[in-house]
Amino acid sequence: MALKARVLYDFSSENPGEISITESELVTLFSEEELDGWLEGENSRGEAGLFPASYVEVIRDHITSNTNNNGFSPCKTKALPPTQTSFTSSDSQSQRGGSGGGSFHTSQGSDDDWDDDWDDPSSPATSAAPQGLGSSPPLYPVTTSLPARRSGSQQHQHQQQQAKSSATVGRNLNRFSTFVKSGGEAFLLGEASAFVKDGDRICVVMGKHGPEWQEDPYPFTCTIDDPTKQTKFKGMKSYMSYGLTPTHTNIQVNRRYKHFDWLYARLVERFPVISVPRLPEKQATGRFEEDFISKRRKGLIWWMNHMTSHPVLARCDVFQHFLTCGADEKAWKMGKRKAERDDLVGANFFLTISPPAVPLDLQEVESKVEGFKSFTKRMDENTVVVNATINEFARKQITGFKKEYQKVGQSFKLLAQAFELDQQAYSVGLNRAISYTGETYEAIGEYFAEQPRQDLDPISDLLDLYRGHLDNFPDIVHVQKGALTKVKDCPKQDGDLHDRCNIISCATLAEIQHFHRTRVRDFRSQMQHHLRQQIGFFQKITAKLEDALQRYDDDE
Amino acid sequence: MALKARVLYDFSSENPGEISITESELVTLFSEEELDGWLEGENSRGEAGLFPASYVEVIRDHITSNTNNNGFSPCKTKALPPTQTSFTSSDSQSQRGGSGGGSFHTSQGSDDDWDDDWDDPSSPATSAAPQGLGSSPPLYPVTTSLPARRSGSQQHQHQQQQAKSSATVGRNLNRFSTFVKSGGEAFLLGEASAFVKDGDRICVVMGKHGPEWQEDPYPFTCTIDDPTKQTKFKGMKSYMSYGLTPTHTNIQVNRRYKHFDWLYARLVERFPVISVPRLPEKQATGRFEEDFISKRRKGLIWWMNHMTSHPVLARCDVFQHFLTCGADEKAWKMGKRKAERDDLVGANFFLTISPPAVPLDLQEVESKVEGFKSFTKRMDENTVVVNATINEFARKQITGFKKEYQKVGQSFKLLAQAFELDQQAYSVGLNRAISYTGETYEAIGEYFAEQPRQDLDPISDLLDLYRGHLDNFPDIVHVQKGALTKVKDCPKQDGDLHDRCNIISCATLAEIQHFHRTRVRDFRSQMQHHLRQQIGFFQKITAKLEDALQRYDDDE
Repeated sequence: MALKARVLYDFSSENPGEISITESELVTLFSEEELDGWLEGENSRGEAGLFPASYVEVIRDHITSNTNNNGFSPCKTKALPPTQTSFTSSDSQSQRGGSGGGSFHTSQGSDDDWDDDWDDPSSPATSAAPQGLGSSPPLYPVTTSLPARRSGSQQHQHQQQQAKSSATVGRNLNRFSTFVKSGGEAFLLGEASAFVKDGDRICVVMGKHGPEWQEDPYPFTCTIDDPTKQTKFKGMKSYMSYGLTPTHTNIQVNRRYKHFDWLYARLVERFPVISVPRLPEKQATGRFEEDFISKRRKGLIWWMNHMTSHPVLARCDVFQHFLTCGADEKAWKMGKRKAERDDLVGANFFLTISPPAVPLDLQEVESKVEGFKSFTKRMDENTVVVNATINEFARKQITGFKKEYQKVGQSFKLLAQAFELDQQAYSVGLNRAISYTGETYEAIGEYFAEQPRQDLDPISDLLDLYRGHLDNFPDIVHVQKGALTKVKDCPKQDGDLHDRCNIISCATLAEIQHFHRTRVRDFRSQMQHHLRQQIGFFQKITAKLEDALQRYDDDE
Repeated sequence: MALKARVLYDFSSENPGEISITESELVTLFSEEELDGWLEGENSRGEAGLFPASYVEVIRDHITSNTNNNGFSPCKTKALPPTQTSFTSSDSQSQRGGSGGGSFHTSQGSDDDWDDDWDDPSSPATSAAPQGLGSSPPLYPVTTSLPARRSGSQQHQHQQQQAKSSATVGRNLNRFSTFVKSGGEAFLLGEASAFVKDGDRICVVMGKHGPEWQEDPYPFTCTIDDPTKQTKFKGMKSYMSYGLTPTHTNIQVNRRYKHFDWLYARLVERFPVISVPRLPEKQATGRFEEDFISKRRKGLIWWMNHMTSHPVLARCDVFQHFLTCGADEKAWKMGKRKAERDDLVGANFFLTISPPAVPLDLQEVESKVEGFKSFTKRMDENTVVVNATINEFARKQITGFKKEYQKVGQSFKLLAQAFELDQQAYSVGLNRAISYTGETYEAIGEYFAEQPRQDLDPISDLLDLYRGHLDNFPDIVHVQKGALTKVKDCPKQDGDLHDRCNIISCATLAEIQHFHRTRVRDFRSQMQHHLRQQIGFFQKITAKLEDALQRYDDDE
């Protein structure tokens, strides 16, 4: 019997050898074995080729369906060592990554390129993240010539680091399933091992609404000042520097965008089931223009707020290093190297999790995770609509609304000009008042044009942040589902396997819980901000009109 | 030397034999003699043909230019008897008017057609008034097949009524210059004679700003109720009836639109230099539709307000008859016949004017009238822009603005719907609040769509009324200018001629003064109304948003 899979997300073929697949479609798999994150099969239109493994869900009605399984047989068969497949295969991508390595920046490159301009178009992380439009499928392994992120990890070849490597190969740029590359599989199969200090321990506690990250006993926030333009090499190069002041030290440190970028890469590899929001977009040209700088700063503030309010992210060493290390170059490099050599990344991250005493009901976990999957899908779809609508609304206010009010203003001024041809004394007051009303309408037009910056752009910024989360969650959910599938497929009860699956589930649900909490908090405060701004806006218009109205009393 | 004239207004040739002329252009006149209100000449492009006499101003640098003048030689030569030219010529229009008379309504027709439906498309007055677009040239004698208004006056043939007839031939529909048809010329030449009772006397007094109509010692206003639908002939015919209640009697009378129409025709012939605002537009189909009825009622209210606030119009017999005559059919018909046989129309109207003791400086009068001409031209041009702008603004609010707010509302509701997939208890309050915010924006969209009716339509109605005045004034100014020209052209000083020109000038300036006074009053109050409405509108939006904002406090 042919192995089937159900398509979870639309995928459009972009390269030779790939086929397009459509959500809900049933595809026939030629083999259950993934090839660097891709599966080969045939779609319902009879086209045969590759598609991203994370875009489909294999249908496992029969235990016998596992007979075809090489790389994914549960429990007993060990997964293919990912680094082996990834870096010794004849895969064109890894070759490209290797051959092009010299000209690409990598977030874990040597310190020598540390001072290169942050906005080099080939710099990693944010530029490498394609954005979905309209739905939230997981990012799939690219086959284009984007720089191979983390190709530097080729140097770590010793077997002992295998589990870690599988995780530290950036989330989206090799051809492994998320479950494998996150380290979830390695941990579940008991392959992770590292020394966990007490300080590294992350507690998941049972809260009123399910597992949650233990709260940070010392919460803090961090302000980001307007960036200042810095130059080096006698003015040959320039860059923007942000002053960050965390409340728990109250000492300002200066960071460039590329430092954020480096931090982001560390966090992504460090926390496989935590959604690290992506950084605000880069922009290759005009990066010193006021609008862009202001927009990026706002994006970084949102990002920072999420970071400091996340109990796990806020406390982690690399983030603390980023926030607190001063101008001492040596101290900075030490912390940097320590972070890059951190053992507790990928699979080992799960070793740091202390779950609540009572294990979760895995059935319940599955249902919760399924519910969350539907939720994120809908939220992703609808926020696309909201974002498009408010951006269009902003555009209309800046152009159309402004123009209409100004046209009315100008026509009132024309009326006043006509009336001024009558030099009767009793007409003068009215003429002035009408002219003033014209100016008032012109001013109201300006108000409309200025307003979106105050109350629509922030919503748009918030939606951007959350769309970043929504892009992350399919991978996070995939790790949990991978673990659950493995446990279910295991013919006999394996206590350790269950325990480890429980840990993954606890961490996943805690992160989901945290997502909901911050979502409710952020959207509440943002909607309140929006409405307060709108109220202020209409009050300002009202006051302006009242002022104009008074002018008509002057000569009566 | 060829006689030249300067073109005052653009005229586009619409019929064979006519030529187009352009404002400021110099045209060569073949003769100064007007042919039923038309002159023959050659334009600057060398085209020869007819154009409206009232659209040009003959250039009189030399006394000798009068040698060509047959019909218009000043002082000594009596003008051609207008009725003679008008009704005995082979002019196609008067023939058409005669032959078609049976099927046309005339405002002075027999009582038999009194009950015919008011909205017959061929009924006179309003339908016969073409509207200028963008400038305010005088209406010119039409050569199309419009019904010849007032063709019934053909029956008045006796010489004694000549002056009156020349006036009662409706202002715009025969081929006489306004100066002639208004009776201005006849009066100036001393041909008017009638018995003027003290009660008919109209005083012009010298006010602070120049001549003005003596104020009405018993001012009143008149309300117009919502019209009610009446039927007759056992429901075969239906019409709308308006309840009018003047404050000086406080007794309601019922009038149909055709009664207004009849009254309008009486007033126009009665007062050659008073601007009787035209009635609100007719509409042939759907006349019982609520919108149209409401719009017409508002137009009639504006019209009535102008009537009751005009010292001369408010007090005149025919208007008082219209306002006070009850349901007694016999009394109504008596008053109607009396008005139709009124002697003091056209030229004789001027006999009723009592000017201030000191005669006006005619030079000053000329300059004032010239200034007023520029004023009306500019006001006409600019109110066209204002009207187009606010109508477009209204349209945008009803369509675009509403749509934008509703789209934002719907997108917020979509956001709430996505959030509702998360069943966390702490999310419920936010979801409801966002959903409510969505409804709020939808409601604000509705507010925008409803608002123009409150504060833009009334301005548009007011502009309509004033555009009616602006259409009237070129004719009024023309009468005064005709008189002034005749006096100037008179070789020797003629005391009586001067006195009569003074009377015409006083009446004209008094009417101009009245126009400015009511204009300042009307536009002041309308702009105040507009601004108060706008303030209320934005306050309503603010309150709605404040309500939505409160919803976010519920669950915090």
